[in-house]
Amino acid sequence: MFVKHGLNSGYSSLASSAVLRRQQFLIRSLGVYSVSDITHLKKRMEAVKCSSGGASFEADAECVLRAITPSLDPKRHKGQAGKIAVIGGCREYTGAPYFAAISALKIGADLSHVFCTQGAATVIKSYSPELIVHPILEESYSIIDVDDEGRRQISKKILSEFDKWMERFDCLVIGPGLGRDPFLLECVSKIMTHARESNVPMVVDGDGLFLVTNSIELVSGYRLAVLTPNVNEYKRLVQKVLGGDVDDQNTHGELLSLSKQIGGVTILRKGKSDLISDGEIVQSVSIYGSPRRCGGQGDILSGSVAVFLSWARQHISATKRESTISQTNPTVLGCIAGSALLRKAAALAFKHKKRSTLTTDIIEHLGQSLEAICPAS
Amino acid sequence: MFVKHGLNSGYSSLASSAVLRRQQFLIRSLGVYSVSDITHLKKRMEAVKCSSGGASFEADAECVLRAITPSLDPKRHKGQAGKIAVIGGCREYTGAPYFAAISALKIGADLSHVFCTQGAATVIKSYSPELIVHPILEESYSIIDVDDEGRRQISKKILSEFDKWMERFDCLVIGPGLGRDPFLLECVSKIMTHARESNVPMVVDGDGLFLVTNSIELVSGYRLAVLTPNVNEYKRLVQKVLGGDVDDQNTHGELLSLSKQIGGVTILRKGKSDLISDGEIVQSVSIYGSPRRCGGQGDILSGSVAVFLSWARQHISATKRESTISQTNPTVLGCIAGSALLRKAAALAFKHKKRSTLTTDIIEHLGQSLEAICPAS
Repeated sequence: MFVKHGLNSGYSSLASSAVLRRQQFLIRSLGVYSVSDITHLKKRMEAVKCSSGGASFEADAECVLRAITPSLDPKRHKGQAGKIAVIGGCREYTGAPYFAAISALKIGADLSHVFCTQGAATVIKSYSPELIVHPILEESYSIIDVDDEGRRQISKKILSEFDKWMERFDCLVIGPGLGRDPFLLECVSKIMTHARESNVPMVVDGDGLFLVTNSIELVSGYRLAVLTPNVNEYKRLVQKVLGGDVDDQNTHGELLSLSKQIGGVTILRKGKSDLISDGEIVQSVSIYGSPRRCGGQGDILSGSVAVFLSWARQHISATKRESTISQTNPTVLGCIAGSALLRKAAALAFKHKKRSTLTTDIIEHLGQSLEAICPAS
Repeated sequence: MFVKHGLNSGYSSLASSAVLRRQQFLIRSLGVYSVSDITHLKKRMEAVKCSSGGASFEADAECVLRAITPSLDPKRHKGQAGKIAVIGGCREYTGAPYFAAISALKIGADLSHVFCTQGAATVIKSYSPELIVHPILEESYSIIDVDDEGRRQISKKILSEFDKWMERFDCLVIGPGLGRDPFLLECVSKIMTHARESNVPMVVDGDGLFLVTNSIELVSGYRLAVLTPNVNEYKRLVQKVLGGDVDDQNTHGELLSLSKQIGGVTILRKGKSDLISDGEIVQSVSIYGSPRRCGGQGDILSGSVAVFLSWARQHISATKRESTISQTNPTVLGCIAGSALLRKAAALAFKHKKRSTLTTDIIEHLGQSLEAICPAS
């Protein structure tokens, strides 16, 4: 079903050869080194090849973006370019779900919903009239006097309110600003189980990853799930699933094993280069973004991956797997496209705002960045 | 009272003749066809003529816009350019009533009110200090412990609060972000009945159409009502009123029948071309807008139609039906103008923002689009 070869650009392969040649020259010229030193250097070469993000794993992200981004046909009606829902937003966090949901719209989705707590909803609504915000989630502090039976009823009502909407969505984003309240996470677990039963794809980030790391069965074996861990989230995932520490000498192999171990869930490991694997292939996206590390960029990524994943599924369904790209896992395509677009938008925003670049500035450059690759008309 | 001829542009008539001539040539040249084939082709001709959206039904929208948009006379005082009220905004939706209300102001109305629930009011107020927002509506969940008598009192109070304002309004917009709560819809039904008794025009959209489709008597025979259904809302209306499925071969005829059947209510059927009928004439607006289908554009339309409908009534009253345009139903004129302006603003916004065009961007281009047709000075 999935191709094992990458979507390599000729340029990346050339760059890789140049790096390898330089490393080989270094080894040859260091005649005084012992055999074990040389073995060590060879290992380093492999590591450089992998972690450089260039080499043969680099995805041709622009090609993917051009293939899966739908043309803007006047015959299409509202909803056909994507309906996304973000599950997140609690007493502490309101920015993260907003960033994810508004990014989806700025890329070109038609409708973007947020499911959050009552308090978060008022604030998220006020950020933008473009979002549809459902204040349905509850945290323990707001039901402190409710007994077990009452809590069961509240949980059931939350699930039934979500179920009314669920099948309309092309993709869910679980986790931006979700928080770690046990009652809320229990409800979100049930939402995830229902979504999975209905084959609704999901991108899991932030506190959603905290939930999933502790209850891996929520996504295990679900091919329409994408996890987008950062360094620390990835470390916890590796410890929990593979039972050891992160192996920086075997970045690609480890990611491949991790994904396989969770039954083919797609993992986008965020870093200097983003690495993506579905247990079958490994791809990297190394386009230069921005040195600014302001909070919220991960939320742009999760919202973007959700849109591109939906578009990739539409593309594959329309082209009936006739092209190389349409033979690739849509979750992998979604990750490549989302990662590349965020990087391009971040670079543009940084060019204008330098040190004061914020997440909002990057979001404002999503449209222009996509337009440069796939002109709308 | 209403003229049966359209407001045809010479260009459209010419285009229509060319289409007809080509079709007639085709029939003549197909000598091997049987009589039934020719009948079928003739039917197709009619269908092409109707569904092409151009032909002799195309309204000269710019001419309508120029005729009904009032000049900006320094002698006029606050309120004379229009006072609009939007009834909508509930726990889930706050963007839709905001879009409708702010669009009315951006076109040139003097005052724009919103009547919504308490929770929605706080958010809608935060979107813009330009709106007057009345937190008077209630949803079932907020009166869960109230008995029947208590509910009657609440309903009476809501109606009396609305009545204090009603006669000041030139037009109501019923439905953007109204939701489907039974208690709230019951109150809105009473508001509509009062407004009708006072001859206040109303534009019904979104959940207002859900209400009206299930209680057609609310608008039946009310010549100052406009319904603005999208594809799905139109389908439900046809099923309910005409008792069958939508007939794509008889678009204009069906719309005419539907409008007649509801007693001359004006219907604006949204689509690739917008079709407008009051049961006497059918007009279309086919100006190219934008291929972007982001949610909220229908709300701009309902707010715009409300303003133009009010201006058309002013124009007709001032010109004493002396011109062709002033002999036309003001609800039809309002629909033509609203549809055309939204399309022009959407086209401008798309030119700048491409795929990332959102409803807010379109609203920002309403003024410029109207200015291009009717310069303010």
